[in-house]
Parts: sequence; structure tokens; C-alpha cells
Amino acid sequence: MVLYGQPDDTGAFDRHYRDVHIPLAKKLPGLRRYHVSQGVTVAFGEDPAYLIAELDFDDAAAMQAGMASPEGKEAGRDMVANLASGGVRNLVFEVDEL
Amino acid sequence: MVLYGQPDDTGAFDRHYRDVHIPLAKKLPGLRRYHVSQGVTVAFGEDPAYLIAELDFDDAAAMQAGMASPEGKEAGRDMVANLASGGVRNLVFEVDEL
Repeated sequence: MVLYGQPDDTGAFDRHYRDVHIPLAKKLPGLRRYHVSQGVTVAFGEDPAYLIAELDFDDAAAMQAGMASPEGKEAGRDMVANLASGGVRNLVFEVDEL
Repeated sequence: MVLYGQPDDTGAFDRHYRDVHIPLAKKLPGLRRYHVSQGVTVAFGEDPAYLIAELDFDDAAAMQAGMASPEGKEAGRDMVANLASGGVRNLVFEVDEL
């Protein structure tokens, strides 16, 4: 999960995310599901995110392999270089379906 | 999405979450999917979450109705009263599947 803080220039962020980053991220080997938030409302607590992206893989090993691939490195480089003006957090975890 | 910060007493948090909060949350009218993280690793950025829960509804109106129900109010009350020692953030958003 990637949580992006409020960017300096939302128009430029939105264009770059849509036109460059989504196509890069969709090439990640092993990616099973990819969704992004449309608007984030904070119901409780502080520090809202501007955009939240979730990328699902079969397991931790598949995710690590995907991120270590050339496509994963390029997507990570693009995130840091072009989308991090408002800060960015990556949270990595396995999920239990309840 | 609910992000819980590091609790004062992780054993008590884990027990309360498992034994009280999950059964409460599973009663939410309109809940379609509920999953929680097993361990969170921060790959990049600060302020890790101790536990991340995601609760999916068909749309924003269904989520609002679920949270406004008696079950929703009880789950929210329990979250604030018993699970917020490390801080808690709620992020509410619609998702675009990519």
C-alpha cells in the first residue's frame, strides 16, 4: 500500500500518476490487483493521504520478486523522483480475510 | 480503512481486537469484505501502523448507512474506547480498479 501526501502541484501529480506511473506499475511481474482511491475523506484522525494505491500479490515472496524486477525498480524510482513532493509511505503486509 | 498505531499493551490490544472488535465489525450491515493485516513492514517512509483493517462496502452510501446503524455506532465506540491507545486513523475512499 502506498499513501501519498498532498503534492505541491496536484494537477502535475495527477497527470504523472495517470500517464506514467499507472502504466509502469501495471507491468509489475506477479501483480494480481491494483486499485487507487478516488478522493480520501478523513473520518477520524489526522494526516490525510492525497492518494492511496493498493497493489496485491499472491504472497510476500511474489511481491518482493515483483519489486526487485527491472519493472519494480523503475516504478519505485518514478515514485520517489516524481510523486513524493507531499511525502509518501509504503506499508507492506499480508492480509487475513475475515 | 482503519490504521491503528502501536498500542501501549499489544497483548491486550490483540485480544480485544480478536475477541470483541472483529465480532462487532462483522455485524455491520452492508459489509462486503473485511481483512486485516498480519504484521506491517514499512518499506519506505515513517509512522508505521500496528494493524490495518479494511472494510469494503458497495458504495459510499452503503458505508455511511452501515456506520450509522446501531452496529456501526457500537463498533466505532469500541474502537475509540478500547483500541486507540496508539492513535487511530480512519481513511474513507472509493476505489478505482486499474
